[in-house]
Amino acid sequence: MDQPSMSYIRVFAPATVANVVCGFDVLGFAVDFPGDEVELFLSSEPGVRIRAIDGDDGRLPLDPQKNTVSASVIRYLEKIGRQDLGIEIVLHKQMPVGSGLGSSAASTVAGLFAIHHLLGQPLGVEDMLQLAMEGERLACGQGHADNVAPALLGGFVLIRSYQPLDIVQLPTPTSLTCALLHPHIEIQTRDARKILKPYIPLSDVTMQMGNLAGFISSLYTNNFELMSRSMQDVIIEPVRAILIPEYDALKRLALSAGAIGFGISGSGPSVFALCKDQLVAKHLLEQLKNHLAHQGITSDIYISSINIHGPKILASQPFTPSSK
Amino acid sequence: MDQPSMSYIRVFAPATVANVVCGFDVLGFAVDFPGDEVELFLSSEPGVRIRAIDGDDGRLPLDPQKNTVSASVIRYLEKIGRQDLGIEIVLHKQMPVGSGLGSSAASTVAGLFAIHHLLGQPLGVEDMLQLAMEGERLACGQGHADNVAPALLGGFVLIRSYQPLDIVQLPTPTSLTCALLHPHIEIQTRDARKILKPYIPLSDVTMQMGNLAGFISSLYTNNFELMSRSMQDVIIEPVRAILIPEYDALKRLALSAGAIGFGISGSGPSVFALCKDQLVAKHLLEQLKNHLAHQGITSDIYISSINIHGPKILASQPFTPSSK
Repeated sequence: MDQPSMSYIRVFAPATVANVVCGFDVLGFAVDFPGDEVELFLSSEPGVRIRAIDGDDGRLPLDPQKNTVSASVIRYLEKIGRQDLGIEIVLHKQMPVGSGLGSSAASTVAGLFAIHHLLGQPLGVEDMLQLAMEGERLACGQGHADNVAPALLGGFVLIRSYQPLDIVQLPTPTSLTCALLHPHIEIQTRDARKILKPYIPLSDVTMQMGNLAGFISSLYTNNFELMSRSMQDVIIEPVRAILIPEYDALKRLALSAGAIGFGISGSGPSVFALCKDQLVAKHLLEQLKNHLAHQGITSDIYISSINIHGPKILASQPFTPSSK
Repeated sequence: MDQPSMSYIRVFAPATVANVVCGFDVLGFAVDFPGDEVELFLSSEPGVRIRAIDGDDGRLPLDPQKNTVSASVIRYLEKIGRQDLGIEIVLHKQMPVGSGLGSSAASTVAGLFAIHHLLGQPLGVEDMLQLAMEGERLACGQGHADNVAPALLGGFVLIRSYQPLDIVQLPTPTSLTCALLHPHIEIQTRDARKILKPYIPLSDVTMQMGNLAGFISSLYTNNFELMSRSMQDVIIEPVRAILIPEYDALKRLALSAGAIGFGISGSGPSVFALCKDQLVAKHLLEQLKNHLAHQGITSDIYISSINIHGPKILASQPFTPSSK
């Protein structure tokens, strides 16, 4: 790679639901909406700079070493030995921060996907995943892959192993729809992790393994009944649900409104339901939103297909010798 | 069901490998060989009696209430309200008792499958599974399904849940071959279960869940590389391997001889390897058997395809009014 491929690129990367009830730290999927957008501009002045961030209410750091987008772009350039390049970044934050919807993963992956395509895709997908996990470590204190892997690859993704990293792309049943609700309260991923029990009874492990295996099978067989029976969590949900107001009521409402399964998205406070179609998702979210409104809690809702393609390029300008 | 369908039946039911390294208590598969055979004779004298058992060196109980085959046949008759019938049983024990190869499950399932067909199949598969699990409880003190379910259904079977019982049949990759080795030492299932740790670190749970999910995926995609990477166990193997002489050496030999994966069959002492074909299985078993022979331990070895049909009827006589 001697010359960049583009002088400008705008990329969307999707929100993601990690854990998926029965796959703590090993399972995640991407949605079509919401997500974050990143613009990269090739600059004649070496170094990586954040030109602007919008949609974050001023909460995200502008320091290139501290912001997960710029930090990931810097690591990318280091990896390919092109610290000589100049990159200016605009981050359009189009989803809530600290929501449990993989907000930092969406930004990180958008930035990495953007620089990757700007420079003619010099790295492989494994390097991209490693860089994205380093971005997560910066943002959340933990280098988990259950948001960045589905954000980068799309669809349902299994993290079979972390050491060494082993990612398995799983099939996505057609028509499967995700209903997301983000209540306007905040939980830090670090806190949500701290309250987990460090030791699990063997009998609970067996139950959870049965559920995860059933869920994986349901993805391959389009079996929504099996998926529904498998979306149970005896390990994490009982602990984390306490942090989410009205959790049990929301779950009851969602399941009685026809959700295949319902649970906490990542470490919360967002919750999600998998539904057999958009109609069920719409009906269900209205009920959940109304229920919370009656308790004085406002919320955002999103209905989305499962995103099976990962990030996408929204706009670009080819590189010409005069671009730089 | 007014009249039996047959006056005589002879049934084979297969040995099974439970746990399959990464699916403790939730996963099992059946092999074509070895297995047990049961003969049932309709008798004019009401009650269930054991006429003979061969191949067990006199170790199995002849008391109809204590032997798992006759006890299961008795429960079957109670379930359908036909305690008036007379049944005589011959059990041909063709596999080692207490071997970790699902010996009691093979006998139980052979007996249940035999009475089921003798009487025109009046029960459903779920009732059959429940009866088989009760037979396991009698034989092993625990009503697990990871041997009886694959023995009854064939192929790879997931026990998604025990309460309520939820069994999922999984696909079997073609050409997959099982190498089994039974060293001539004995472990009681009850003891092998007692030494397990009652609490598991959450990080180990995550690792194990990744492995199980990867293994399930590999069955659907015929991906032997993924299967190999997934056949790891950080929870059970480290504890139970201690009970099996030369376990680490056997594992090293098996993997270097080309096994996809290697582990303890059920609670041991038998070990198994999944192999891509019969040639690898044969070569590998010779090495393992020789290694143990040098340590003064004799062993039986078996090479088998995965049994995808479950039990089979070997011979039968139709019922005629004069049969009884």
